[in-house]
Amino acid sequence: MAFRPALYIVKIMQVTIIAVGKIKEKFLQEAIAEYEKRLRPYMKLHILEIPEERRPVSATASVETRAMEKEGERIVAAIPTGSFVIALDVQGAGRSSEEFATAFRQWELAGKSHICFLVGGDLGFAPAVLARSDKQFSLSRMTFTHPIARFLLLEQIYRALRINHGEPYHK
Amino acid sequence: MAFRPALYIVKIMQVTIIAVGKIKEKFLQEAIAEYEKRLRPYMKLHILEIPEERRPVSATASVETRAMEKEGERIVAAIPTGSFVIALDVQGAGRSSEEFATAFRQWELAGKSHICFLVGGDLGFAPAVLARSDKQFSLSRMTFTHPIARFLLLEQIYRALRINHGEPYHK
Repeated sequence: MAFRPALYIVKIMQVTIIAVGKIKEKFLQEAIAEYEKRLRPYMKLHILEIPEERRPVSATASVETRAMEKEGERIVAAIPTGSFVIALDVQGAGRSSEEFATAFRQWELAGKSHICFLVGGDLGFAPAVLARSDKQFSLSRMTFTHPIARFLLLEQIYRALRINHGEPYHK
Repeated sequence: MAFRPALYIVKIMQVTIIAVGKIKEKFLQEAIAEYEKRLRPYMKLHILEIPEERRPVSATASVETRAMEKEGERIVAAIPTGSFVIALDVQGAGRSSEEFATAFRQWELAGKSHICFLVGGDLGFAPAVLARSDKQFSLSRMTFTHPIARFLLLEQIYRALRINHGEPYHK
């Protein structure tokens, strides 16, 4: 019996995270670095940090709105062409980790090979950013700081991939 | 007009967190230590670690159930007398951070001066633990590792107290 080599064209998934603001806490920098390392075998991961718009602590609502819009313009400009865009928003739909894993698998099967997650800053997203996104998704009904949200997003992506690859992962 | 000093009896709140298993990741140990420090001015905080029940990686369902029950007995034995007991469970009710802050305020006003949170291990809670708890509460529809859940709980308690004291805190 002749040996017939099978040819698999595996397109490695790309994930871009566009996040507003820097991570100041050392423990969160380390947490994020750890999950970047864990995700490396599964995907091409890029994290793009967008500078936070500077404003006085006691800025008026209109100054804050303008700052949010400026951040929004920078976010939209950074979105990679052809990517499937998911904004992390507390108002978005909540999902269990298993549902998130299933969604990830479905995006892959639908040929969405580049997923772009948006993590806003303290001000949240300008309407233009939400309008540019394909989905809005909430990590929790609770509000977390944006550095914590970035960490949790990476952890849930990692969990989703472990679930989809049938690999064990602690609850 | 005579000066009449007002006498306020301020009862400092006690919070006990009973958690199954150790925190292995250094960044989470640091994250938890940071929030313990931030919470110290607001409350007497105790974290009691309950040892995880050892079992083989490929334990049968009945071995796992027995391990869960043993952990449950240890948890129940550690609950401080007279405390108001809240089990963190993914099946519990989700709350926004503002609702959680309001609940905290209401417990204080109702004289519940000692709140005891339970954070389960990989196996979750035995029915006896859920039966012993006054409330079940979910951080998110997503599943987090129990060390991450412990960190998020502390962060949300801190956020709740900042909200209730009218102090600023980043979204």
